Amino acid sequence: MEKITLTVQGMSCGHCVSAIEGNVGKQNGVENVTVHLSEGKVDIDFDPAVVSLDKIKEIIDEQGYDVE
Amino acid sequence: MEKITLTVQGMSCGHCVSAIEGNVGKQNGVENVTVHLSEGKVDIDFDPAVVSLDKIKEIIDEQGYDVE
Repeated sequence: MEKITLTVQGMSCGHCVSAIEGNVGKQNGVENVTVHLSEGKVDIDFDPAVVSLDKIKEIIDEQGYDVE
Repeated sequence: MEKITLTVQGMSCGHCVSAIEGNVGKQNGVENVTVHLSEGKVDIDFDPAVVSLDKIKEIIDEQGYDVE
């Protein structure tokens, strides 16, 4: 299991938290997702043998947010 | 049919637009709802014989927004 913190632009409300936590969280290989709205950060625990970091970034991007 | 523009605090993204337009729009007596995100305004066409303005404000409030 690997832990990473991504900086994500455009998260502004509780709906955004749900969109990211819900969609990243249901990806196979993702163990835990926590959005820190006021900091614009997303903590993710994932298994790199199952899902790549690029795939996780792609899911966030598809929800309409910019991953730095 | 009556037209009104409400000032609503806390609408910040497309999810907020959907939450308000969807929930107010499905109320009986509401003909049309348009959220103007950058202005913090919500235009509503409604039939006051079917739904009260207070009921409409209550629906917006229940979604977590402050109606002025």
